[in-house]
Amino acid sequence: MYLTQALKRAVQQRGNELATWCAGRERTWIECHERITRLAGALQGLGVKAGDRVAILAMNSDRYLEYFYGVPWAGAVFVPINTRLAPAEIAFWLNDSGSEVLLIDDRFIEVLAALDGQLESVREVVYIGDGETPDGLLDYERLLAEASPADDAERGYNDIAGIFYTGGTTGRSKGVMLSHQNMTCNNFNVIPSLGFKTGMRWLHAAPMFHIADGLAVFGVTMCAGVHFFIPGFTPAATLQAIADHRITNGLLVPTMLNMLVNDPNVGDYDLSSLEAIVYGASPMPEAVVQRAMEVLPECKFTHAYGQTELAPLATCTGPEYHVLDGPDAGMYKSAGQAVLGVEVKICDENGVEVDRGTVGEIRVRGPNVMLGYWNRPDLTEQAVRDGWMCTGDGGRMDERGFVFVVDRMKDMIISGGENVYSAEVENAIHQHPAVAEAAVIGIPDDKWGETVHAIVHLKDGAQADADAIIGHCHNLIAGFKCPRSVDFRDQPLPLSGAGKILKTELRKPFWEGRDKQVS
Amino acid sequence: MYLTQALKRAVQQRGNELATWCAGRERTWIECHERITRLAGALQGLGVKAGDRVAILAMNSDRYLEYFYGVPWAGAVFVPINTRLAPAEIAFWLNDSGSEVLLIDDRFIEVLAALDGQLESVREVVYIGDGETPDGLLDYERLLAEASPADDAERGYNDIAGIFYTGGTTGRSKGVMLSHQNMTCNNFNVIPSLGFKTGMRWLHAAPMFHIADGLAVFGVTMCAGVHFFIPGFTPAATLQAIADHRITNGLLVPTMLNMLVNDPNVGDYDLSSLEAIVYGASPMPEAVVQRAMEVLPECKFTHAYGQTELAPLATCTGPEYHVLDGPDAGMYKSAGQAVLGVEVKICDENGVEVDRGTVGEIRVRGPNVMLGYWNRPDLTEQAVRDGWMCTGDGGRMDERGFVFVVDRMKDMIISGGENVYSAEVENAIHQHPAVAEAAVIGIPDDKWGETVHAIVHLKDGAQADADAIIGHCHNLIAGFKCPRSVDFRDQPLPLSGAGKILKTELRKPFWEGRDKQVS
Repeated sequence: MYLTQALKRAVQQRGNELATWCAGRERTWIECHERITRLAGALQGLGVKAGDRVAILAMNSDRYLEYFYGVPWAGAVFVPINTRLAPAEIAFWLNDSGSEVLLIDDRFIEVLAALDGQLESVREVVYIGDGETPDGLLDYERLLAEASPADDAERGYNDIAGIFYTGGTTGRSKGVMLSHQNMTCNNFNVIPSLGFKTGMRWLHAAPMFHIADGLAVFGVTMCAGVHFFIPGFTPAATLQAIADHRITNGLLVPTMLNMLVNDPNVGDYDLSSLEAIVYGASPMPEAVVQRAMEVLPECKFTHAYGQTELAPLATCTGPEYHVLDGPDAGMYKSAGQAVLGVEVKICDENGVEVDRGTVGEIRVRGPNVMLGYWNRPDLTEQAVRDGWMCTGDGGRMDERGFVFVVDRMKDMIISGGENVYSAEVENAIHQHPAVAEAAVIGIPDDKWGETVHAIVHLKDGAQADADAIIGHCHNLIAGFKCPRSVDFRDQPLPLSGAGKILKTELRKPFWEGRDKQVS
Repeated sequence: MYLTQALKRAVQQRGNELATWCAGRERTWIECHERITRLAGALQGLGVKAGDRVAILAMNSDRYLEYFYGVPWAGAVFVPINTRLAPAEIAFWLNDSGSEVLLIDDRFIEVLAALDGQLESVREVVYIGDGETPDGLLDYERLLAEASPADDAERGYNDIAGIFYTGGTTGRSKGVMLSHQNMTCNNFNVIPSLGFKTGMRWLHAAPMFHIADGLAVFGVTMCAGVHFFIPGFTPAATLQAIADHRITNGLLVPTMLNMLVNDPNVGDYDLSSLEAIVYGASPMPEAVVQRAMEVLPECKFTHAYGQTELAPLATCTGPEYHVLDGPDAGMYKSAGQAVLGVEVKICDENGVEVDRGTVGEIRVRGPNVMLGYWNRPDLTEQAVRDGWMCTGDGGRMDERGFVFVVDRMKDMIISGGENVYSAEVENAIHQHPAVAEAAVIGIPDDKWGETVHAIVHLKDGAQADADAIIGHCHNLIAGFKCPRSVDFRDQPLPLSGAGKILKTELRKPFWEGRDKQVS
């Protein structure tokens, strides 16, 4: 069980068919494979040995895919870096992982300058952009041209394949070590659970450094599908790419899907090729799902739930539950049922499974549970107990095994002794027609401990005041759950690399100097 | 990664839905699970410990499924026994595996008497039939009623799950040790490769002792489908069960499918519920596939290829290749492409991969390759080289990775220095309208080394003589491949438990006292 096996299978079965398209460059699986063997040879030529870490800091491209296969082919460990980090955070990831080689593209040349003197382990920097190679960097295409193809190192099973750092919403980053087995077992679910199929045409619009689209790199290859790359998500570029390349499949985080289906020009594009979209990484407001189903009536939606530590899939809700009528109406709000090979249970604080319908922590066991946190056995021990990953997410399970995520345990607000799940409040606010984005946090209150506070960004030209938002909520949810105060922002809310709203940042001004755990 | 996980998932997601139907008995997943925990408790009560072997000798039933889950639930190892063996062979399997407990049904009470004094390890015999429990045997239902439910032993990954004996066509039986991982990885392929789906209705008509239908026990459970059991295959019982229970899916070996679609009464049954049939275990004559596609025009066919040592899947050809027109016409003759997670290559005698189109030995690598042969490290070493299973099957691969099995290496006839693949000759003979069954073997010849000899069983009432058969072949295949002699049999040809024609037996009278390796 090893990641490069799927690549070899694609070469064996569809060698002369299109594998990657990027900015007009087209390559077959045979060509793609040949470049990967050369990249592995080049890395070995740079002194990269089995188990060494090789990082990348770049926008999406075909070379990013070559990296994801070339590094394990060389026996090394990939470390994809979040493109939205500050230089100090990038330095932390590179140094913490001990990465020896770094691949970067044009967008990060300036960042590299800012990192000068801060990098402890990086020996070589490889430029994978399309311009002139800056002084002091190695040229990717030249390295490949001069390298001898390497034999596959054939690491597999419990060998570490990559380190994916989590963080953004939860303080200091942790490196999640995923094995070949972790990621391969996830791959086995892409066809039965996510609607992948042989020869599909996938758009990499979500950032490839994140495990969600990272999963697709390996899953699409397992299906010998075609990879299309755009540097990053914008509604216009995504809509254009779908229309131009007759894209059939893709993954979007909720904020992206929201922007896409509410784009004023969405009607100008032919989106009829779209067969299936996976969404996830954070809960999707009802109004967005409904709008997506209106705009793309022929497209099948799957709601996937998981986390980096689960490589990442735990549960999913398939297209048969994305219906507005009948007994399963609204079931898409659920994160879904355990995928194949994966166990899910809801536990109390002692790890004992609770009754169906009772809220507790979502715990997950299976071949997809991470090897552990890089260099942090203490955190690993806290997070993985008897093989069960403690997700930190609160949820409940219904009689059919559908999991409803109520909140990050950390995002739960305790107000006057009552638990308020911020996601439920956000869902209510989102149903107000003027609202584009909303986040709900607990803020300190001497009487109640915490009170419910909303931060809202309105749609262009739309108007609403705090009373309107609060009054709207009172029509939908219990009084103790309704916001007591509302802040309005002119700009979109701050997002993590995974497209999640950074509640840590939103909370900070309220909690500084107090004892609420905000990370 | 462990087999009982899929059972727990079925209970979590479809606990109150039908799980098994057998002779009018219906049980939900919750009921089925409860009985399995009691069976495990009962086995432990009989002194069965982790790793101990528990055998079964029975026709298909719901209790056979309970056995397949209850044994690993107790931490023990299942050993399903071929129902068509002679007593001495049964004794060999039981003694060789060191089975301590044996489950049997009514059909084998007499066999048990014949085994008196020959069994070395069996301590307890459990009666799983529906009649009065014979003296000296333990009653299955009573054991379950009196047992406490056991906790799942949760063995998994590389722990041995079962021993499946191969044999019949190839001399003395060998016990194939399959791990939880071997069988689970196979399970991951049932949806993407074999057309399984959630809630499917599966008919166990093929014998459950064989890994082919054994795979379905675990695969259907992974899909939380419904299991229907008939004691064994007959065309009438199978047709009736499909119609009565609106069966959607099943697996048949070629000889069974042949009998089914050529049954004179096939038109009397409503078979419209059938959605997908998997066939395999031996190559399918063209005429049978074509007839099956005529009789069941709405049913999707998948040709699966593998062997017990591969748990068992290696390749498959899906319904999109079961077409009579267009560029893929006739591709169903191929064993298909490597399934997910599995590598397949064609090698010369030194293990070096040959060019596409060249015949060599089919070799397979992946998480499905057996742990080894039970107590036969010498044979394991010969069969598994650098992780690659040497299948003993000859084949070639086309440009798209489709494998064409030409023959068992051992069934290849060398006549005057030319290689003749018996399957190709059998295929030609099968196209003669009078032929029901045909087998082709090499028989000794002083001039040519071997000559091609056919053994034919004609359809009821049909007539043909040797000249007619040989002349027919000359219209289809090269002269050196045509039979030189033809024997006609009144009875169907002898079959192994897997439904393969026992060429060893057919060869014996010709080769006795000579040096051809006939086993």
